[in-house]
Amino acid sequence: MPNSSNIGRVHYRHFLTIPTRWMDNDVYGHVNNVVYYSFFDTVVNKFLIEQGQLDYSKGKVVGLVVETKCQYFAPIAFPDVVVAGIRVAHIGTSSVRYEIGLFKNDEDNPAAEGYFVHVYVTRSGNKPTPLSTQMRSVLAKIS
Amino acid sequence: MPNSSNIGRVHYRHFLTIPTRWMDNDVYGHVNNVVYYSFFDTVVNKFLIEQGQLDYSKGKVVGLVVETKCQYFAPIAFPDVVVAGIRVAHIGTSSVRYEIGLFKNDEDNPAAEGYFVHVYVTRSGNKPTPLSTQMRSVLAKIS
Amino acid sequence: MPNSSNIGRVHYRHFLTIPTRWMDNDVYGHVNNVVYYSFFDTVVNKFLIEQGQLDYSKGKVVGLVVETKCQYFAPIAFPDVVVAGIRVAHIGTSSVRYEIGLFKNDEDNPAAEGYFVHVYVTRSGNKPTPLSTQMRSVLAKIS
Amino acid sequence: MPNSSNIGRVHYRHFLTIPTRWMDNDVYGHVNNVVYYSFFDTVVNKFLIEQGQLDYSKGKVVGLVVETKCQYFAPIAFPDVVVAGIRVAHIGTSSVRYEIGLFKNDEDNPAAEGYFVHVYVTRSGNKPTPLSTQMRSVLAKIS
Repeated sequence: MPNSSNIGRVHYRHFLTIPTRWMDNDVYGHVNNVVYYSFFDTVVNKFLIEQGQLDYSKGKVVGLVVETKCQYFAPIAFPDVVVAGIRVAHIGTSSVRYEIGLFKNDEDNPAAEGYFVHVYVTRSGNKPTPLSTQMRSVLAKIS
Repeated sequence: MPNSSNIGRVHYRHFLTIPTRWMDNDVYGHVNNVVYYSFFDTVVNKFLIEQGQLDYSKGKVVGLVVETKCQYFAPIAFPDVVVAGIRVAHIGTSSVRYEIGLFKNDEDNPAAEGYFVHVYVTRSGNKPTPLSTQMRSVLAKIS
Repeated sequence: MPNSSNIGRVHYRHFLTIPTRWMDNDVYGHVNNVVYYSFFDTVVNKFLIEQGQLDYSKGKVVGLVVETKCQYFAPIAFPDVVVAGIRVAHIGTSSVRYEIGLFKNDEDNPAAEGYFVHVYVTRSGNKPTPLSTQMRSVLAKIS
Repeated sequence: MPNSSNIGRVHYRHFLTIPTRWMDNDVYGHVNNVVYYSFFDTVVNKFLIEQGQLDYSKGKVVGLVVETKCQYFAPIAFPDVVVAGIRVAHIGTSSVRYEIGLFKNDEDNPAAEGYFVHVYVTRSGNKPTPLSTQMRSVLAKIS
């Protein structure tokens, strides 16, 4: 596997602990590469809900995922616990790019790193819509 | 939805906290019925690993799932936390039946109840094999 | 594993072919028990959509899953193809019970059998609501 | 959403049809971004199995996923069918980069594009190992 980028937990600004599940493991006995992206959108969306910036059933704007990427450095396996760290790397007019690091148990070298880009659109018309002032100040807290 | 069977947490003998994930939710904004079974095999297998009774990569015997059932009483939705309770209901020669209750956050009425039956077989030959004495005593602790 | 109930494909009235996916396999190299339930709600909901009986984004009634069960007779593994058969076993005032058989590739003995119960409720109030006449006639076709 | 890169099906060399499943949809009624990566590793691994280049239970070498990326251009929703196209973009000493396009139903503009990088390692020692001659010739067919 490639070496990690040597970005430890200090790079990230907000963390969520996500226990692995039995079915996360694939035939090789490690968490399947797909599941890492589930950790990505779980940490991002939970942060937004806790900060009052996401109401997925009634909100008038919706964050669409337009691009994601992940580099895998070391395996994770059930029953490991994943600590997902996020940092806002870029705030555009209607978009947000999050950098994400996944750490296994209490390790400081990431098992994986990637990013996740949301574009906000109106729920009804699917048109890009500017981030609210409140949303911008929430994002600034973890920039 | 049907009423629950009014079996609260007291019925169960071992618990595991399992946070929901963003993608657990389906189009109706609730955790999809399928995912509940992932909670089932996570709580059972994590218990067995912690008790030294499951080594899924090298163990000579394997627990095959032969039957599962779930009744759904109340919705769960991300970012709720699930508390999964288990109790061993029956120990056969080579099989174990676990009763499982899923509780939403700090509620005492189960959101769902079900069971999960393992039959132990040899990894190589796939033939039923009797539970070990050590395994029986571990299971007895949560009967 | 238990013997199957010896109910072949002839028992079912409608079929859907569902290819397995790489991540369906678990550490033992077989499709995880949880995933079988995804086959269940896929065959049922696709049938309802094709028959014009399910509009999950705008429909005024919603089918809640209240009970599911599965017995596992034989393993399935990626890249096997699953053929899911359904039959309506019971139609209540506001509920439907589907019997489901999962067949591996071109086999006639089921790899798994189970059932799936929907209760229909109003989307807004979550109260049980009687099945429509049109729905009843659709269900009758596969009874 | 961003415009697609206007790379149609003609860019890809091998295709697999993957029907969506009910639980692929998320709360917004579209296939969740995570699931796209399941389409990625399904099309790649099925191709390798069919070509006799992957025996996940007994093979002495294992393809580890070290990097994946996806750009999302247009939504897909159950019961849509996904056609996944792949092309080998780079063959290294022990690695392969696949470009992947996902097409909705019979559309020619991709709903998503991305890539997927495997590094081959020995199963026992987890050390990078050169691609076999046979593997290289299989990959060349879809380069």
